[in-house]
Amino acid sequence: MRLLLVNPNVTQAITDTMAAEARRSASPGTEITAVTARFGTLYVENRGEAAIAGHALLDALAEHGSDGDAVIVAAFGDPGLAAAKELMDVPVVGVSEAAFLFAYTLGRRYSIVCLTPRLRTWYIECAKEHELATRMASARALSRPIADITRARDECREALVEECRRAIDEDDAEVIIVGGGPIAGLARDIADAIPVPVLDGVSCAVRLAEALVALGPRPPQRGSFARPRGKPSRGLSPALAALLEGGSP
Amino acid sequence: MRLLLVNPNVTQAITDTMAAEARRSASPGTEITAVTARFGTLYVENRGEAAIAGHALLDALAEHGSDGDAVIVAAFGDPGLAAAKELMDVPVVGVSEAAFLFAYTLGRRYSIVCLTPRLRTWYIECAKEHELATRMASARALSRPIADITRARDECREALVEECRRAIDEDDAEVIIVGGGPIAGLARDIADAIPVPVLDGVSCAVRLAEALVALGPRPPQRGSFARPRGKPSRGLSPALAALLEGGSP
Amino acid sequence: MRLLLVNPNVTQAITDTMAAEARRSASPGTEITAVTARFGTLYVENRGEAAIAGHALLDALAEHGSDGDAVIVAAFGDPGLAAAKELMDVPVVGVSEAAFLFAYTLGRRYSIVCLTPRLRTWYIECAKEHELATRMASARALSRPIADITRARDECREALVEECRRAIDEDDAEVIIVGGGPIAGLARDIADAIPVPVLDGVSCAVRLAEALVALGPRPPQRGSFARPRGKPSRGLSPALAALLEGGSP
Amino acid sequence: MRLLLVNPNVTQAITDTMAAEARRSASPGTEITAVTARFGTLYVENRGEAAIAGHALLDALAEHGSDGDAVIVAAFGDPGLAAAKELMDVPVVGVSEAAFLFAYTLGRRYSIVCLTPRLRTWYIECAKEHELATRMASARALSRPIADITRARDECREALVEECRRAIDEDDAEVIIVGGGPIAGLARDIADAIPVPVLDGVSCAVRLAEALVALGPRPPQRGSFARPRGKPSRGLSPALAALLEGGSP
Amino acid sequence: MRLLLVNPNVTQAITDTMAAEARRSASPGTEITAVTARFGTLYVENRGEAAIAGHALLDALAEHGSDGDAVIVAAFGDPGLAAAKELMDVPVVGVSEAAFLFAYTLGRRYSIVCLTPRLRTWYIECAKEHELATRMASARALSRPIADITRARDECREALVEECRRAIDEDDAEVIIVGGGPIAGLARDIADAIPVPVLDGVSCAVRLAEALVALGPRPPQRGSFARPRGKPSRGLSPALAALLEGGSP
Amino acid sequence: MRLLLVNPNVTQAITDTMAAEARRSASPGTEITAVTARFGTLYVENRGEAAIAGHALLDALAEHGSDGDAVIVAAFGDPGLAAAKELMDVPVVGVSEAAFLFAYTLGRRYSIVCLTPRLRTWYIECAKEHELATRMASARALSRPIADITRARDECREALVEECRRAIDEDDAEVIIVGGGPIAGLARDIADAIPVPVLDGVSCAVRLAEALVALGPRPPQRGSFARPRGKPSRGLSPALAALLEGGSP
Repeated sequence: MRLLLVNPNVTQAITDTMAAEARRSASPGTEITAVTARFGTLYVENRGEAAIAGHALLDALAEHGSDGDAVIVAAFGDPGLAAAKELMDVPVVGVSEAAFLFAYTLGRRYSIVCLTPRLRTWYIECAKEHELATRMASARALSRPIADITRARDECREALVEECRRAIDEDDAEVIIVGGGPIAGLARDIADAIPVPVLDGVSCAVRLAEALVALGPRPPQRGSFARPRGKPSRGLSPALAALLEGGSP
Repeated sequence: MRLLLVNPNVTQAITDTMAAEARRSASPGTEITAVTARFGTLYVENRGEAAIAGHALLDALAEHGSDGDAVIVAAFGDPGLAAAKELMDVPVVGVSEAAFLFAYTLGRRYSIVCLTPRLRTWYIECAKEHELATRMASARALSRPIADITRARDECREALVEECRRAIDEDDAEVIIVGGGPIAGLARDIADAIPVPVLDGVSCAVRLAEALVALGPRPPQRGSFARPRGKPSRGLSPALAALLEGGSP
Repeated sequence: MRLLLVNPNVTQAITDTMAAEARRSASPGTEITAVTARFGTLYVENRGEAAIAGHALLDALAEHGSDGDAVIVAAFGDPGLAAAKELMDVPVVGVSEAAFLFAYTLGRRYSIVCLTPRLRTWYIECAKEHELATRMASARALSRPIADITRARDECREALVEECRRAIDEDDAEVIIVGGGPIAGLARDIADAIPVPVLDGVSCAVRLAEALVALGPRPPQRGSFARPRGKPSRGLSPALAALLEGGSP
Repeated sequence: MRLLLVNPNVTQAITDTMAAEARRSASPGTEITAVTARFGTLYVENRGEAAIAGHALLDALAEHGSDGDAVIVAAFGDPGLAAAKELMDVPVVGVSEAAFLFAYTLGRRYSIVCLTPRLRTWYIECAKEHELATRMASARALSRPIADITRARDECREALVEECRRAIDEDDAEVIIVGGGPIAGLARDIADAIPVPVLDGVSCAVRLAEALVALGPRPPQRGSFARPRGKPSRGLSPALAALLEGGSP
Repeated sequence: MRLLLVNPNVTQAITDTMAAEARRSASPGTEITAVTARFGTLYVENRGEAAIAGHALLDALAEHGSDGDAVIVAAFGDPGLAAAKELMDVPVVGVSEAAFLFAYTLGRRYSIVCLTPRLRTWYIECAKEHELATRMASARALSRPIADITRARDECREALVEECRRAIDEDDAEVIIVGGGPIAGLARDIADAIPVPVLDGVSCAVRLAEALVALGPRPPQRGSFARPRGKPSRGLSPALAALLEGGSP
Repeated sequence: MRLLLVNPNVTQAITDTMAAEARRSASPGTEITAVTARFGTLYVENRGEAAIAGHALLDALAEHGSDGDAVIVAAFGDPGLAAAKELMDVPVVGVSEAAFLFAYTLGRRYSIVCLTPRLRTWYIECAKEHELATRMASARALSRPIADITRARDECREALVEECRRAIDEDDAEVIIVGGGPIAGLARDIADAIPVPVLDGVSCAVRLAEALVALGPRPPQRGSFARPRGKPSRGLSPALAALLEGGSP
């Protein structure tokens, strides 16, 4: 099975971090291909950057989408996820979506722990859009500014563990989701220090994608996720223009 | 990996049907053990029968729970599911829960199609309890009485397909869940006749359980799903009494 | 009028406490019969124990149900309540349900004060299941472990009063519900110390049951609370088997 | 026990109808005093008339409130109910409130059947304000204009029964509430023709008021239903001015 | 354009304060007429007073309603607003309604800051009735009693600014609404001291009313805001009786 | 006052239609500047196209944003609206947002009538994202395919009027919103044929923008709509890169 992991920001180092965690999490026969957005910001942290990332995701899928049995949208916050589901014939899963769904199976209330207040706001809106926010106990962010987000996994580790504990003690969290591409894989490292299940979005997305490929649901021919009819465009990459023009087979 | 599938009603034929579908759906290395409740009703269709089935599930888990890396509660409606999650140290998934969660990834609105109006009511309450009902487009039941529920998969097939189509046409369903143990596996047979993804609870539960075992979240030591402290009981099976008395390690 | 009070745990002392409060609360002409579950745990505190208690309740009702004009399910958390309503032709009320409903008439926001964090979680889920949680200001539990729950009414009195006051001061509670069978009747004792109405589940259930008997609504012949059709069973008590087999008249 | 029933419209015939039903429904020792608003409209059917009725209710309570151990606000729609609860030291119940609460004990979904589309809208808003609308299956009104609302109980009986049946067949109602002062008592007459419980607001309010008086919750000294501090006014009846000026003791 | 501002309490000084702010906020060609209720309390702070104010509003509109192209209900809490919309053929806006709607355009979460705990409760209920409460972050009131509410704008200024800051720091408010007639216009004075947008109900209502007049939606002939049919009344002012009797043209 | 209207699709004819309606709706002193997206699809109809349009909106704002006292996002569905609010220092309003908010002032339930089922789905999601969907009675689309959407205003007029009437008759709509750029201004033409208020998104947005400019709320320095800190990017237009890099002043 081949999974295409798309990082919708432009930082190769974050792609590499997420791809590494994806490979650690995958079943033996699963091969991970990871691509980075052609345009956008260094990382995605707010609504403006997410709007650009949504387009960048589609741009990358138009270029690389045929490389996978399923697609993973690899930015916590799931920018462009629903758009990608609409346009692709293979299953598409987001790292937030996947983490939320597994959290639902493991407890009554989950908390998200992340790096910055902007991410916190965006993640809350993401959970609401998925209609998976009613069990969110809290979303917690570090209060200190972060010098270099690509080094946050090491440098902020203690502070993040501390927020996980506060989520349990003060917010009654029963599951913790550690959110954000640059800290992909951290959940694995800190699991022993946290007395409730800790989930990582990339790991969850890999296992969810594998499960969906195995279940093999047919692509919808009806409803709002059926492939739209073809439509002309202007100013887009040739691949994306072709994808939109092609429309439903 | 070994999965323990527990049928909380007393009908071996339904256990066999569900076990067969579970084995068809499982990964190559996964072994399915299926057990049937010691006490209860021929199938589980309403709140009264579900109350008994909840106890019967725990009774079976106390007897057989050590046989699996994860447990599948194999009655659509998930009787006793939360209770089982609380008492077991391995992941426990329900067939409804699993179907709802996969439905969330495949469309905006799902419908449940099932055999009887009583089941319909119970399934709606089940979705609400999971807090996964906001995307339910409808739940539809056959209106004719069913002579022999163990033969419903064949005899009601056309009527069920018809309800699936109505759910799409009239309720805007984008995903269909075919619910009920006696018709486990039907989704596979009718997928080509339905223009949107069709999900089967048993298949979904098998793949969800496999994913959870692979992710390996630690059992909670805090919160309402941590193993309760031991407590004396009276009148229960020796195995269940021991499970309750044992409490958290 | 005869009311049958069923304690779904196996501790006679708790039955006695609740029956005494029920008799203090009843109208002159009302006679209270109290029965204790044949099987289950010493008290009911979490989802696992509640699952067993639901079956135990039905078992007791099958044995004793013909003794009453109405039934009171006497464990805060209302285990098996909806199942019992489905199977019985007389009104069935739960002590939580009754307390919530009277709370709705007396203020905009109510808080539950109870003995342990496990009870707190269960009671919150109970209120949600009744769809009476939108006015819940908070649920508060004692933080200290309780040595002997049958003596909690005396030994924890001051701590419970303190939590009632915190619910008013910090959570804006306008009504307090004191929840839990072992402390049935405490509300009466502490009412003068609390500046808002304090409700006891057993008292509320007695008065609610009397009102329902007086109103005399007919048993439903349609809908999900109509008596189900008869169904064979295995491994149940003869009385419960007969009740299920009998089905709707 | 003395119950004061206040009709917030100006039509004595409707007061008489409701008082008669209240007396039929009351316990042997309960005495009903019924008063009619001094000002307002012939009946209360929309937001404008309800706004006037709210003031008229307080005006009547200031004049007659000392006559009762509890107060019944006797217009379905409960105009001024929360205001009255705030100002009175005895329990105050509304006929809608009471019917909704008993409906919650008897089924999962209730429908209101009433005389006119305007009433229908107002009753829906009333249920939402009480936060008791999540179980409302539907509200149904007669489509034909009503010549004389004081004769509606007889003349519209068949049409109302027909709407009750539609609520069951088409909306899955499990409990029916027959709403509106002019048809108080109709529920009693048609109960045999309807296969689910049928509730009358006045009957429910009488039994709810009796229960509250028996429970004897103390008047709140904190929160938004504690008696407000005294405040001067202008242009009100002397009794109402005195009630407002008096404030909390 | 002429706007009729109705103060539903009886204090001319508050009318003057609100009218002054309305004139400061209006477009050049807009003329403000301000009237004070004939009856009611010195200001409106709780449900009882709001019930009277609703009638007083209709009374004033019947007398003065022909003086405006639109009506502003000038008490935060919007007493009688829906009733007035139902009866008038010109647009009617409330100061709370207007502030909530503009808050929705400026941030994800708004907080109300007001003078007293009673107002706080009433304003929360008002937001819920408008179905505009899901984005309310908090409602905050001063804790100290207020000697003279007509001087609160000056004397409580610092305390109100402090609550605004707490709403931002502790409740994550992104917009602040300063609520209450006596402090109309305060938002303008403190805007520079608060790091998020601060809204004043009267200003918002003026601009919302102007916009609605310009859009010129037709009065509804269908639905619950169409003018009701005429209905006789008793004990009301001649003007209000005529308005109700007149009914829809 | 200058308003910048941005059409996030690439069709100049639709920009012209919307700009014409905007000018018809504006106050005398208001000047409308209209720009068309540099890249994207012929019109915006689904999630994929909306994702591209969100980026295109920001691209256009970076180029032209200094031309206005406020910005109107002129595609029903409001693609990129929240992103634009975050990045701009002047008020930004969406045509859906504006129509929903005015609808809240004019009735209890509104319906959207639009051209295609894909639009319908997107508009429903838009209303939910704005948390303004609880009063949505329905969203209705034409069922026939549309040959040329730029001619839809004339060719589909009768069919759209018919859907408006159905929304009133069958869904109890009290306000109608006619949604979609190609039919901007249609509301004005059909108002006389519809017995409830009919709203046009562009008109509403113009008047809402004018009102916001007049109220003059300060740009937030706190919260999720404060201008983010500057961040490097890759592959974006120079103007957008500069806007993102610049960050908060």
